[in-house]
Amino acid sequence: MEIKDVKNADDLRKLDKKDLSRYAQLLRARIIEVTLENGGHLASNLGITDLAVALHYCFDTPKDKIVWDVGHQTYAHKLITGRWELMGKLRTDEGASGFPSPKESEYDSFTTGHSGTSLSMALGLARARDLVGGNEKVVAVIGDGAFTSGEIYEALNDLGDRPTPMIIILNDNNMSISRNVGAMSKYFNNLRVNRKFVGFKSDFKADLASLPFVGKPLARALTSVKNSVKRRVVGDKFFERFGLKYYGPYDGHNMERILDALAIAKSSQVPVIIHFLTDKGRGYAEAQTDPQKYHGISPKGEKGLSMSAVVGKTLCEVARTSNIAVVTAAMTDGLCLNQFAAEYPQRFFDVAIAEQHAVSLCAGLARGGVKPYFAVYSTFLQRGFDQVLHDVCLNDLPVTFLIDRAGAVGPDGATHQGIFDLSYLSLIPNMAIASPKDGTELAALIKWSATVKTPLAIRYAKSYSRDFGECAPIEFGKWEVLIRADSGVTVLAVGKTNEIAVSLVGATVINARFVLPLDEELLDSLEGTVITLEDNVLHGGFGEAVKNRIGKRCNVVAIGHGNEFCDIRSIDKTYEKSGLTVQNVQKIVNSAVISLENHKNL
Amino acid sequence: MEIKDVKNADDLRKLDKKDLSRYAQLLRARIIEVTLENGGHLASNLGITDLAVALHYCFDTPKDKIVWDVGHQTYAHKLITGRWELMGKLRTDEGASGFPSPKESEYDSFTTGHSGTSLSMALGLARARDLVGGNEKVVAVIGDGAFTSGEIYEALNDLGDRPTPMIIILNDNNMSISRNVGAMSKYFNNLRVNRKFVGFKSDFKADLASLPFVGKPLARALTSVKNSVKRRVVGDKFFERFGLKYYGPYDGHNMERILDALAIAKSSQVPVIIHFLTDKGRGYAEAQTDPQKYHGISPKGEKGLSMSAVVGKTLCEVARTSNIAVVTAAMTDGLCLNQFAAEYPQRFFDVAIAEQHAVSLCAGLARGGVKPYFAVYSTFLQRGFDQVLHDVCLNDLPVTFLIDRAGAVGPDGATHQGIFDLSYLSLIPNMAIASPKDGTELAALIKWSATVKTPLAIRYAKSYSRDFGECAPIEFGKWEVLIRADSGVTVLAVGKTNEIAVSLVGATVINARFVLPLDEELLDSLEGTVITLEDNVLHGGFGEAVKNRIGKRCNVVAIGHGNEFCDIRSIDKTYEKSGLTVQNVQKIVNSAVISLENHKNL
Repeated sequence: MEIKDVKNADDLRKLDKKDLSRYAQLLRARIIEVTLENGGHLASNLGITDLAVALHYCFDTPKDKIVWDVGHQTYAHKLITGRWELMGKLRTDEGASGFPSPKESEYDSFTTGHSGTSLSMALGLARARDLVGGNEKVVAVIGDGAFTSGEIYEALNDLGDRPTPMIIILNDNNMSISRNVGAMSKYFNNLRVNRKFVGFKSDFKADLASLPFVGKPLARALTSVKNSVKRRVVGDKFFERFGLKYYGPYDGHNMERILDALAIAKSSQVPVIIHFLTDKGRGYAEAQTDPQKYHGISPKGEKGLSMSAVVGKTLCEVARTSNIAVVTAAMTDGLCLNQFAAEYPQRFFDVAIAEQHAVSLCAGLARGGVKPYFAVYSTFLQRGFDQVLHDVCLNDLPVTFLIDRAGAVGPDGATHQGIFDLSYLSLIPNMAIASPKDGTELAALIKWSATVKTPLAIRYAKSYSRDFGECAPIEFGKWEVLIRADSGVTVLAVGKTNEIAVSLVGATVINARFVLPLDEELLDSLEGTVITLEDNVLHGGFGEAVKNRIGKRCNVVAIGHGNEFCDIRSIDKTYEKSGLTVQNVQKIVNSAVISLENHKNL
Repeated sequence: MEIKDVKNADDLRKLDKKDLSRYAQLLRARIIEVTLENGGHLASNLGITDLAVALHYCFDTPKDKIVWDVGHQTYAHKLITGRWELMGKLRTDEGASGFPSPKESEYDSFTTGHSGTSLSMALGLARARDLVGGNEKVVAVIGDGAFTSGEIYEALNDLGDRPTPMIIILNDNNMSISRNVGAMSKYFNNLRVNRKFVGFKSDFKADLASLPFVGKPLARALTSVKNSVKRRVVGDKFFERFGLKYYGPYDGHNMERILDALAIAKSSQVPVIIHFLTDKGRGYAEAQTDPQKYHGISPKGEKGLSMSAVVGKTLCEVARTSNIAVVTAAMTDGLCLNQFAAEYPQRFFDVAIAEQHAVSLCAGLARGGVKPYFAVYSTFLQRGFDQVLHDVCLNDLPVTFLIDRAGAVGPDGATHQGIFDLSYLSLIPNMAIASPKDGTELAALIKWSATVKTPLAIRYAKSYSRDFGECAPIEFGKWEVLIRADSGVTVLAVGKTNEIAVSLVGATVINARFVLPLDEELLDSLEGTVITLEDNVLHGGFGEAVKNRIGKRCNVVAIGHGNEFCDIRSIDKTYEKSGLTVQNVQKIVNSAVISLENHKNL
């Protein structure tokens, strides 16, 4: 088998060992090509390519299961498993998802996109295997960044209590998304510094004993060597405490070493963790020098003004006069918080990928007299739902949530849609929710929020296209009338959907700046047809709340996303599917106007 | 100062050291008295009483802050801080809450009731102190059970990254709520077994160096002793990895030892963890022998038939013919799963207090071909919200959630209300929600669920009062008509509220067995007035969904809980406040009937 003829994992397993590195090079070239074209996660995928090749070479996929934590590092995996062409249109509706997807391939066990769940899911697969009497191997691949997610420890704790054979691959590139933070990161660093890369021969001796039949006698002859090696190499107490056998660290780009390590792991009767060191951006000089910059690459020609940039700038301004602190969960870059981090290092807390802790930490900061802002992507705040409800809102503390990437997110697709926050936040007592239509209003809301004494969420899309100019002064729970018309049709628009609303003809347009509480006074004054626009699922969202208040009296038409997961990979198309277009809303306005006029003429 | 005259923490600090144990005895007697009378957490509170006394004696509360993890172990703390009388009516509306409450006392930093948040909140307080330039001490008190919550590790990781002085008290009674599970529990056991209780003298030497002024020279003279002691006592690598100085384990009932240890902690310039061993149920022979039985005591005269018992029994039946597994997060007892655990140990997974992991584990089990049931209290499932959405529902996996203690919970109050689940689950695509009115229907639903191939939640109250007899066969999304009337008034009742509905006169009564999906066919056939009853907040719940579908055509009156946190400590009174009474609903039925008749006569 020649590397150019490899079409799937079965073909890969027919390759000569010595060709694997060259094959990995081929994959890297393709990854660079498709990512620069379509956007996506470049550096992390280049870093894990050798491991991906070795995993499919060593394990009998898809019978053996690989669970990829976070899921954004599966490009090589996808290329190996028959998706070479599909990857050409990566992150578009015609191409491959940027994340694993069982709908795409039987090689993908789960759709994943959030951090720290792989070990739990893999343990479930392993236990199910034990219960149904299977013999497949189960492998979880986790980055060092995910080791800051609390769920990993919950899983380790459970695994340690009732162990079953499974293999954990720790892909340690010393980066989560921004700088890797936390005590665990320091610890991994120590492992790196204190140990040399492990050569195969020493391990082989150390683990001969675990090989069937021949292992024990051979190993006995080498006892003293074995013991000294064991102390040096596999003596890590941290993972042993959780019942794991630890191997490493190994060079994650040395194919021979990787395969040897995987072979040992494969034959183990106890759970093992293998620690590989990889270079994020391997094989792409530019990415390797600045992997953070190339963590997530935006697709070519992405348009719009950045809301995140407004946040970063405004927080710096507010910090000059107010006693605020900013918390992020490993998203300093994506949230444009670098300037704040540099100017106010004492008041800036990057807690790593740990949204639960971030929220409770904010509760503590607030109780202690500092005003905390937790800046977070909408989809990731889901991880802190209980803490938002229990620690912040039940305690009625003045934490402000800056919820970025709210609404449809485009290329990332189903795993990252920010279309649930209006619903899951609205149901929480004591919460207030505001949503700005552009950067000017976002800045005004943040400045205003510094004096707010109760929980508040400010949710906004990644970008906006229209600058509305000066906005009406912020008043708690009050909306802003943008256009007055005398047609009997009113459009209530949330956030970015105001861009649609102001392009309509013949309707009063109100910027529903607060989704919670509603501007009840204004609402109660409305008559005729009321159309609500929101970039959120309809269930439990803004439109239903409006309907619930005035639906008896007015003809309320709620437009938003349907109650289904949405894997559309462009924001425009997502809007289109949900009827969030000028054309569609104009049609509704027009027919409402006609019907109201007919009614008048009767 | 005599112990009988102690009215608050200031008084306590005037006591002679030698009287503290006797004072603690007095508190224990009071705790036993009020708990046997009102119900509550007996064993854990008896176990922590000596520590609570010592903490208030050693620290300058309320200036110094104590954050109690989980919060159910604060009875002694409350008795010490001026709530002796209030504790007489513990867990009633006239008395003290069973959990900390800043509304009750300035000695309570936060309202808490969920596990594993104390370290995050305390770190927030400590960082706020540093930012505002305070000098108060911050203490987090955590049980060993809470160490299975992932959030603790997120906080440890952050603390290790940017340490600031704070004190963590590990109250190790070797019990979470049921048997303590997990690798961490084994680890704590090892610490217990491998080390003798630590006497003060050795520690004193070990930590002389950290005392101001005199410490260093003295310590130098004792270097060799110090080092050997240090190895034995404070050499724990696990906590050191997170930048914590570890002391212990100490006898948590030896007042002198406790005070000495706290004094060292108090003067530390780095974060410390002090490990105390305590007996759950200390001072109450019966509770000490069987602390699990006395973990939570029900108030005298609590009525109703147990839904949980039905679940335990039915799961055993289903397991005989179906390949199911049952997962719980440290709630084997409360959920009546002991029989299942005994009969099917291989298929039963108690993962400790780790709801996130529990949900993702279920996703893995389901993908692996085993049908998992996650039995959990409604309020605790909030902790797994993201995993329910992302791992189970986005992957459309056949996990069944058995959601116990749904609706108003009575004595536990605000921290444990199960009144949000209909809302936070309804907004998740692919989810289905059923709610049975009694034990017979619950059993039928569980049996039926074994064949369901998609995510399903079955939510039920702790108990039911009325046995409705045989129920109509379960059909996905279909409701059950209980009473037919010709009045034009229909009552749609969810779960337990059917008990109210069938006592009404003059209304059609329908058991809305499925909250999601709605029985749209039946709904669309309704006319006139429709009254919905649900034991859930109105926002995003059942009534609003009904209104949303037929609110234009019918007069929908939704009855449920208001959108506020509810700290009422009796189920009856909670129902009353929300209008969930026969009297109130009958009034609405009557006036609807009259108005419909008037309308007919026009």
